[in-house]
Amino acid sequence: MASSASKLENLEIKEMQVVPCTNSPYIQSSRVTFKQNGINRIWDYIREHDGVYILLYNTTRQALVLVKQFRPALYMTVNREQHVEQSHDLHKEHVQKIDSSIPYTAPPTCGVSYELCAGIVDKQTSLEEIAKEEVFEECGYDVPLGDIKRVSAWRGGLGTSCNMHTLFYAEVTDPMLVSGAGGGNVHEGEQIELFYLPVGELRSFMYNEDIAKECSLLFALSWWIENVQKA
Amino acid sequence: MASSASKLENLEIKEMQVVPCTNSPYIQSSRVTFKQNGINRIWDYIREHDGVYILLYNTTRQALVLVKQFRPALYMTVNREQHVEQSHDLHKEHVQKIDSSIPYTAPPTCGVSYELCAGIVDKQTSLEEIAKEEVFEECGYDVPLGDIKRVSAWRGGLGTSCNMHTLFYAEVTDPMLVSGAGGGNVHEGEQIELFYLPVGELRSFMYNEDIAKECSLLFALSWWIENVQKA
Repeated sequence: MASSASKLENLEIKEMQVVPCTNSPYIQSSRVTFKQNGINRIWDYIREHDGVYILLYNTTRQALVLVKQFRPALYMTVNREQHVEQSHDLHKEHVQKIDSSIPYTAPPTCGVSYELCAGIVDKQTSLEEIAKEEVFEECGYDVPLGDIKRVSAWRGGLGTSCNMHTLFYAEVTDPMLVSGAGGGNVHEGEQIELFYLPVGELRSFMYNEDIAKECSLLFALSWWIENVQKA
Repeated sequence: MASSASKLENLEIKEMQVVPCTNSPYIQSSRVTFKQNGINRIWDYIREHDGVYILLYNTTRQALVLVKQFRPALYMTVNREQHVEQSHDLHKEHVQKIDSSIPYTAPPTCGVSYELCAGIVDKQTSLEEIAKEEVFEECGYDVPLGDIKRVSAWRGGLGTSCNMHTLFYAEVTDPMLVSGAGGGNVHEGEQIELFYLPVGELRSFMYNEDIAKECSLLFALSWWIENVQKA
């Protein structure tokens, strides 16, 4: 991971261009109209892939294994927040219009998040196998399939996509690290770094809002504290 | 809340029609292209409103106060899951095409979720004031502004919207209930019911995957167990 770590430290984002999102293979919107108990309603929603998350605990290092990466959606959001006030009428200020008119002055590191190892469900295999592959691809650990335990599942945003997210847990050791593996899908331009979070620093990390993270990470760490650390 | 409770029990969804989502005031997609350390990348992302969540604990009843409601996005997703296999190539099977061609045979209760009281940030007031208004509008409790405590904040899906979600906590009592309040925004067709989750049933509720819920609820309940119940 040493070489990809240096890549993220010297993150360079250039030639940024905002274009219309047509026929996306990842995000599709639709609208449904209906009568609910006689009252007319309209709702806009999106379709996304389902996802898997894997919380990894490295017992050799006594640290949780997270990933750090540049997230374009995060960068665009943070940069927008620095240039325009939160709009309360999205109708009037379309993201396309805003994001293609503001300068990209936020430093690229504003787009770096801390996350669970994760992946989308885009293969005809079991969720556990997809989880195993993501652990190898993103983190470089070769984990036996049987060591990947299911924790729980939930729905994505109930107002928007409701895709299914499943959380797994696995314990790993340094000898499971495969030389040259990890770092993400190079062909897709992913440059994923490992971040080892020592067990003594969980709570300060969780409530540090300067660190961009999803709720999935907050729940997974809460689950680990109660079900592994205190068990 | 008695009258709206009966409405959700006898939930009737009729005249469902799927139409193109154009110029949505809630969900907008865009695409960014850029070079990351010399490698060409493309990313599709969405813009949504920021949101607030409020975990309510009713000390009179010793129960957490959740809301139940029919979520169109959830219904569409569950119904789709019952008719078509999860597609691994979203390009080929657009949600518009799928959802307008399948029958809506799932019972309407498949679209009912259990959630924290919540709302979108669509007003020029403080997050605490928006939280207070949502508690009144959805749950019927008149909570003093000073009783609404900030817990933490996180980003929505790091791959998609990255909008900011802020979690608040407030303790309420039965005398704070205002007669006739609650149930959601009737003009928007919302029919929101209260669900009192007894503190002794938290864990079985959290890990019951038959109950459709977001990760925000799982984290909020975990936070409450560690920081209120055990404190």
